[in-house]
Amino acid sequence: MSLLVTGSIGIDTVKTPHGVSEECLGGSSIYFSMAASFYAPVRFVGVVGEDCPFDLAKVFAGRDVDLRGLEVRPGSKTFVWHGTYHDNMNDRTTDYVELNVLQEAPPRVPEVFKDSRFVFLANTAPALQLQLLDQIAQPTFVAADTMNLWIEGHLDDLKTLMKRIDCLIINDDEARQLSGRSNLIQAADDVLAMGMKVVIVKKGEAGSLMCSADGAKFLLPAYPAANVVDPTGAGDSFAGGFLGYIAQQGQADFETLKVALAHGTVVASFTIADFSLNGLGGIVRKDIDARLEELRRFTCF
Amino acid sequence: MSLLVTGSIGIDTVKTPHGVSEECLGGSSIYFSMAASFYAPVRFVGVVGEDCPFDLAKVFAGRDVDLRGLEVRPGSKTFVWHGTYHDNMNDRTTDYVELNVLQEAPPRVPEVFKDSRFVFLANTAPALQLQLLDQIAQPTFVAADTMNLWIEGHLDDLKTLMKRIDCLIINDDEARQLSGRSNLIQAADDVLAMGMKVVIVKKGEAGSLMCSADGAKFLLPAYPAANVVDPTGAGDSFAGGFLGYIAQQGQADFETLKVALAHGTVVASFTIADFSLNGLGGIVRKDIDARLEELRRFTCF
Repeated sequence: MSLLVTGSIGIDTVKTPHGVSEECLGGSSIYFSMAASFYAPVRFVGVVGEDCPFDLAKVFAGRDVDLRGLEVRPGSKTFVWHGTYHDNMNDRTTDYVELNVLQEAPPRVPEVFKDSRFVFLANTAPALQLQLLDQIAQPTFVAADTMNLWIEGHLDDLKTLMKRIDCLIINDDEARQLSGRSNLIQAADDVLAMGMKVVIVKKGEAGSLMCSADGAKFLLPAYPAANVVDPTGAGDSFAGGFLGYIAQQGQADFETLKVALAHGTVVASFTIADFSLNGLGGIVRKDIDARLEELRRFTCF
Repeated sequence: MSLLVTGSIGIDTVKTPHGVSEECLGGSSIYFSMAASFYAPVRFVGVVGEDCPFDLAKVFAGRDVDLRGLEVRPGSKTFVWHGTYHDNMNDRTTDYVELNVLQEAPPRVPEVFKDSRFVFLANTAPALQLQLLDQIAQPTFVAADTMNLWIEGHLDDLKTLMKRIDCLIINDDEARQLSGRSNLIQAADDVLAMGMKVVIVKKGEAGSLMCSADGAKFLLPAYPAANVVDPTGAGDSFAGGFLGYIAQQGQADFETLKVALAHGTVVASFTIADFSLNGLGGIVRKDIDARLEELRRFTCF
């Protein structure tokens, strides 16, 4: 079923202990769409400046990604991000950032996308996420990402958003910050009390935790990757695999969400094995399914 | 089948954000034996000074723990440990330590224990672990713990030990230290190359990882505990549940080890819910089995 994503498109320069990738394609909506396209048709909503050096039609060629929501804005410049990952591959520093078009008006959701059933609101100001969500007529399942910046400075908007979405996908630091609790189980419960049905807490190489408002829990280790080349996009690929699988199934009961989380985990493991989109670019759905079965063997007893 | 443990017996004073427990019973062999006794008869080998305020026969009353390997050494003093856990409950500081009897000659393994099939060598100098192991005629499965102190200063002894045991149980920092690698999958592989068949890497609230020399892997999250009162003894209880289950099954193939690891995880979750042995003291095997099924639901997809 229809899956809509709104998020950033960036020109990334990434340094890791494995090398440097200069001015490559990045951004949350890009990684999300690439990952989700293995599962379901993706409706893409995002904006770049007229300087954007990437041809997204070419990037997504052969994949079911509908780019009618892509806006190339004259007179604006594309989002730029430079980051460095440190030796442990978990901590990163933002070396340079130009928000550019991301601090202007958000892109509009095309009329033909407004009946989308499944929606991912990638990380941006919660007021903008709300504005985008307002344009979707009757979504079945809406997930959103957020970050420390909005938890600190835009908590009221974020709280309004949390009452209107089904699932919040955050990392462990954000869960602790949002709840004021160090224990992640307690933190997840506190976040759930803010309104949504399901919260997913990503813990990097420690895997992820999913809790629902009715008390169900699911814990999954990260896929045991011996070679991590570039963690950029891991979180958005995770969300893409997760929501892609849900959209493909057309339902969002907890048992479906568990398998969806495993798909997100596996797709992210392909992303981090190479720079930029190279990790996802070279695989097919069969590779994902094979690794999912491997993860099942690794985790079930 | 027969399960032998050698390790410390301590007088612990523990501070955590939840309170203080003064001069309570602790030590690796104590936590291990308490945990393992839910599964199999335990043969206990350890030494205290004549000042020891605890009656171990009373502590283990009603449990199948054979104390014929307990030595009360005249003229010696019992091991003392004072520690403080910080807010996140993962980091701890040793405030005070008196090794006392632990730096004297190790206890001897009684003649009637020398046919033990399953053995746990709790953390001590690897030369002593070797000396203890030499006294066991024909063990089926031997596991050992170690720590940073021995990796730094007694690596040759440790390497000799690693060639003679079946399983090393260490934490993530120790795995990184021993291998010089930050990625834990690579670290585990490097540690396996040092000689043993199986390595278990404990990652605190991030769960654990088990790898075998023939390439099999198993990953398990920690049990999602909302209330952690005192982490002391978690690692030794984990080892006790793990080896207790293996001894009960009488076999150590990888599928058995997977379930054993889940038992270790669950038993440790009871330990950390209260100070000292109180968490383990109030439960029966049925409680463990119920929580194991809960963990299975939380992790399998």
